[in-house]
Amino acid sequence: MKIIIVGGVAGGASCAARLRRLDEKAEIIMVERGPYVSYANCGLPYHVGGSIPKESSLLVATEQTFRDSFAIDCRTRCEVVGISSKDKTVQLKNHVTGALTTEKYDKLVLSPGAAPIRPPLPGIDLPGIFSVRTVPDARSIREWLDRGAADCSGMNSYTGFQTVNKPKRAVVVGGGFIGLEMVENFVERGLEVTLIERLNQVMPPLDPEMARLVERYMVKHGVKLELNDGVAGFKQSADGSLEVLTASGKKHAADIVILAIGVKPETELAKMAGIELGQRGGIRVDDHMRTSNPDIFAVGDAIEVKDFVTGQWTLIPLAGPANRQGRIAADVICGRDSRYRGTQGTSICKIFEGTIASTGASEKVLIQTGDKDFEKIYLYPNSHAGYYPGAKMLAIKVLFRKSDGRLLGAQVMGEDGVAKRIDSFAMAIQARLTIYDLEEAELSYAPPYGSAKDPVNFAGMVAVDIIRGDMPICHWNSVNGGFLLDVRNPSELAVESVDGAVNIPLPQLRARLSELPHDREILIICRSAQRAYYATRILLQNGFKARNISGGMLARSHRAAT
Amino acid sequence: MKIIIVGGVAGGASCAARLRRLDEKAEIIMVERGPYVSYANCGLPYHVGGSIPKESSLLVATEQTFRDSFAIDCRTRCEVVGISSKDKTVQLKNHVTGALTTEKYDKLVLSPGAAPIRPPLPGIDLPGIFSVRTVPDARSIREWLDRGAADCSGMNSYTGFQTVNKPKRAVVVGGGFIGLEMVENFVERGLEVTLIERLNQVMPPLDPEMARLVERYMVKHGVKLELNDGVAGFKQSADGSLEVLTASGKKHAADIVILAIGVKPETELAKMAGIELGQRGGIRVDDHMRTSNPDIFAVGDAIEVKDFVTGQWTLIPLAGPANRQGRIAADVICGRDSRYRGTQGTSICKIFEGTIASTGASEKVLIQTGDKDFEKIYLYPNSHAGYYPGAKMLAIKVLFRKSDGRLLGAQVMGEDGVAKRIDSFAMAIQARLTIYDLEEAELSYAPPYGSAKDPVNFAGMVAVDIIRGDMPICHWNSVNGGFLLDVRNPSELAVESVDGAVNIPLPQLRARLSELPHDREILIICRSAQRAYYATRILLQNGFKARNISGGMLARSHRAAT
Repeated sequence: MKIIIVGGVAGGASCAARLRRLDEKAEIIMVERGPYVSYANCGLPYHVGGSIPKESSLLVATEQTFRDSFAIDCRTRCEVVGISSKDKTVQLKNHVTGALTTEKYDKLVLSPGAAPIRPPLPGIDLPGIFSVRTVPDARSIREWLDRGAADCSGMNSYTGFQTVNKPKRAVVVGGGFIGLEMVENFVERGLEVTLIERLNQVMPPLDPEMARLVERYMVKHGVKLELNDGVAGFKQSADGSLEVLTASGKKHAADIVILAIGVKPETELAKMAGIELGQRGGIRVDDHMRTSNPDIFAVGDAIEVKDFVTGQWTLIPLAGPANRQGRIAADVICGRDSRYRGTQGTSICKIFEGTIASTGASEKVLIQTGDKDFEKIYLYPNSHAGYYPGAKMLAIKVLFRKSDGRLLGAQVMGEDGVAKRIDSFAMAIQARLTIYDLEEAELSYAPPYGSAKDPVNFAGMVAVDIIRGDMPICHWNSVNGGFLLDVRNPSELAVESVDGAVNIPLPQLRARLSELPHDREILIICRSAQRAYYATRILLQNGFKARNISGGMLARSHRAAT
Repeated sequence: MKIIIVGGVAGGASCAARLRRLDEKAEIIMVERGPYVSYANCGLPYHVGGSIPKESSLLVATEQTFRDSFAIDCRTRCEVVGISSKDKTVQLKNHVTGALTTEKYDKLVLSPGAAPIRPPLPGIDLPGIFSVRTVPDARSIREWLDRGAADCSGMNSYTGFQTVNKPKRAVVVGGGFIGLEMVENFVERGLEVTLIERLNQVMPPLDPEMARLVERYMVKHGVKLELNDGVAGFKQSADGSLEVLTASGKKHAADIVILAIGVKPETELAKMAGIELGQRGGIRVDDHMRTSNPDIFAVGDAIEVKDFVTGQWTLIPLAGPANRQGRIAADVICGRDSRYRGTQGTSICKIFEGTIASTGASEKVLIQTGDKDFEKIYLYPNSHAGYYPGAKMLAIKVLFRKSDGRLLGAQVMGEDGVAKRIDSFAMAIQARLTIYDLEEAELSYAPPYGSAKDPVNFAGMVAVDIIRGDMPICHWNSVNGGFLLDVRNPSELAVESVDGAVNIPLPQLRARLSELPHDREILIICRSAQRAYYATRILLQNGFKARNISGGMLARSHRAAT
């Protein structure tokens, strides 16, 4: 059996290594257009920033490793320039020698990845505008930033020649993962950074109100944030620096520009092979990673995947899924029945001292799919026992199905313990667990790591209270017409209060029920919605109509974060 | 309805608060023998060590809170001295006034906890010997340690009076959670610490070879570790300090001694009430937390629980389960069908810069229960992408069922990312997931937090390879008679090698197969068992009998850690 794998890195390289383990006799050729067959592209922003100083750290496995340890015919700087699916051949071009060769295959695996989107804007090819996808990209950015490092005067007084100023101002276009990681790493390098994002939020997998918290970290670190504005073009100024022009007519001066608008699946090869694409523009595969041609498989960022929660086709370019897809394609080629389960979109990102993470469906996505059978909650627990040093507040949003309690999605932001919680939620979604299961989850607790009631348990408890009817809730964006009751202590109100809310501190509530109306719905406020929950129970059992405002004052200030 | 809850803290206080939320009209009395109704006993060692400086930080909720916010008749320093389950009454003694009163109940909830074991050894009541269970215990220990703080000379030369030396030498008896936390906190305070443990390992929920890693941290921090030795008695020396005598005849000088031998369920009240106890000495309850008397419930450290994995009755005194049991008892008393699912024993502990955690069944427990349908693996992945700063090696042991792949237990030790992994394993055990599910789990990955193949995925992959027959393994303790093949590079062997092993580096293996015997089983060695896995695949497919030694050289040095 002869297998040709097009494209290395996560999906292709995993597939190749797995194929060899399963079939010692197969002929395996892996071709990669670029100079490196397996590198850590997730580390590129940190190499630019300097926390990963050596480029060689990013090289996971070399051509030599693939040849020696896996007996794989590994060819870098080699591109597939033609596919005949009828003859089962590919035409290869060696970019070093220019030679063209034709290879037959029994099975072909496409792992071409996704390319940075580069809209045809005026000036987009000016020097100083970069994407961040490959090791050579990172090298070019570093070289650009290091220009003029030795002489920052602009004019070298001794020689009389004009030298280049060391870049000081960066504009990052696009607020997704790569964009935010580049922002952080530019700030670490001491640059002034502007982030331009066409949407009303950064970090598209999040819902906008959770993105507010991410934005807050950027503002805190001096980043100029330009939301709701797209890039219209680029110009070179008289001094050689760049100007970024936006749709709203603004101009942002820049010594370096990063384009991180997103990626689109590389489908040239798929088109050559005549295989089916999906509506989202990616290669369509079944759960065996097989394309519409039974001898051609595809994996990684180039394919469409089924969203694990909504069941819809989507594009989710992530390294973990690409790795698993590569393994599954290898298994299937070797006659095994491995199947891909779909992608949850579990992701995490460091934002200065903060961490933001999400898994499963967002509210946005649920609304887009027309789903009305869901509820959401906000909670703000400590990352670990409050009495142990270093506890930080987490902001958590959880989405669940009203009819059966199934967990649909979670978003977590904070400075401690975020990864621990998002992985618990991710595992729960994978196992199709419900909020009832979250309530009973037995997670690790000691004062430095958690609480006897972990934030994940707490999310389950709050959600179950809602679904069982023990705690009707509402959200700040639907607070109108209700009677607002604030059950905090007067000292807390002195700091921040809500216009028109009546204050009865919780300990006085039972004695002052006569002050409350029976003919209006009472919407109850406290700091984090815990005391308001107790108050809701008191009122409901005394015949009032009452709702807890989810997340309390913390959810209110959270929404207004930037 | 009138409910009396005996004992506050985790189980009782959770039950009381939940009862009030569910039933605004119920009469609820909560009595607590000690001075505090709800305090963070998990924080006590850290209060002694000083990282939680204020005692008041440990007080979670006061009597006043329970009265004002929950309308609960909360009585501290009040002890139940008699129960008549026939009359449904309890006799209460007020320890302040000495008054005895009798209260009727409709439902009684017992939450008396577990008491530190205090064997009747000679000298056990000498001053300077402490347990660590309550806020007053911690206060006494702090006061004892602060004695003589102002004058360390032993003899006050001005007054001529002998003063007390500031304690310098601590002996901790018992290497469980409390024992280890006390060791760490004494070291933090600058004391010389000796830990005496009767068993051959610290941290009983772990298997002994994983405990070796914990022990290594203690030795590293200068703790004198005395395993396999029990305490035989205590003596006071002429200078007023203590001497701890052991079963093996050793003597350890001490200025303070902590007894942390374990706890036993408080069952005095249960005996008074005539309710059933289990074989392990705890109160027997059903999954509604109901005792053998339908009007009496019991929760927390005093009860026996079903081990979630083995299904056997056991004693697992942990705060998280106690909290959930309290809620469930309240639910059931209020007519709801909540059920306790059993306890997994998920636990975690900080050991200096390290963290040790476990969930589910250990190998010891599986062997005890006569289970032979399990396999174990060891792996040593990085806590996050190795190219990003701060990655640390994790040591992971995973136990799973051979016949169906169900995950049975996991133990994780390391200095980074331990809580994230143990919670993923814990959630997977709760959901009865298999190693196939671990392989497919979609966990959070970005370079600072994980790897594209998370350690949890990696554990799944290794286990699945075994169960599918792709990778036969063996363990270091069963390596005998096989042909040992080391596939590392010669430079690695120069550092550490295995006697009698033949070295063929992986890249040369395919060309040197003729050097290997066909009539013997070949046991393959590398650093972490990854290259040995590749070698195993090559040999198996070439007709050899081959096994990978699980965990490789890392597992070998790990076993020999202390």
